Amino acid sequence: MSNHALVLFAHGARDPRWAEPFERLRQIVEEQKPGLVVSLAFLELMTPRLPELIAQLVQDGCTEVTVVPVFFGQGGHVLRDLPVMIDEIRHQYPLLQITVAPAVGESLDVLNAIGRYCVGMLGNG
Amino acid sequence: MSNHALVLFAHGARDPRWAEPFERLRQIVEEQKPGLVVSLAFLELMTPRLPELIAQLVQDGCTEVTVVPVFFGQGGHVLRDLPVMIDEIRHQYPLLQITVAPAVGESLDVLNAIGRYCVGMLGNG
Repeated sequence: MSNHALVLFAHGARDPRWAEPFERLRQIVEEQKPGLVVSLAFLELMTPRLPELIAQLVQDGCTEVTVVPVFFGQGGHVLRDLPVMIDEIRHQYPLLQITVAPAVGESLDVLNAIGRYCVGMLGNG
Repeated sequence: MSNHALVLFAHGARDPRWAEPFERLRQIVEEQKPGLVVSLAFLELMTPRLPELIAQLVQDGCTEVTVVPVFFGQGGHVLRDLPVMIDEIRHQYPLLQITVAPAVGESLDVLNAIGRYCVGMLGNG
């Protein structure tokens, strides 16, 4: 495997259908970047959680991880819960290079794409 | 105002910063479709809630509403909570034409844009 892994970090939910777009996104990123290992990790209610996924990636020989929060807003989960988890991971794996990107909702390109989708949903009304 | 309003329906959170990307999205959609009234509504923790926003839109003369759930996944909130709210709104405003779009995470264009953002976050590593 590549030494650099991408982790898509999402909230999680009780309903298994909730994970479907994230799994689709995972496949899309793998297609956009062949050879890259792309994994999902969840904050709660779904597995794997971030710490157990990181443990697995390290065991597989990964030396660098980029975590992208697949959240629209930078609320408590991204600004408070995630940094605590990342600190613990850094403490546990001091040799692992770990980067946390801003949440996807911070990307203007992403918001523009959502905007186009919204306008498209208006139909002819 | 236009008779057709677009409502961006989001989850809500305690942290006010959480609403920022949704407000940015609201402005983007208004720029993409000048003249369209675009409003935010929240499921919980933030205001306005969907029923009170709809009441206001109807009072302002709106006759048609398109609700776009700004959620990645179609979990319990979109598949269970939202339809209940929409049913109540339909019951209360039988003349209002109300359409609910699939969640934005169902759009392949949106997922592709998120994917490009993720790949961009890898840097040169």
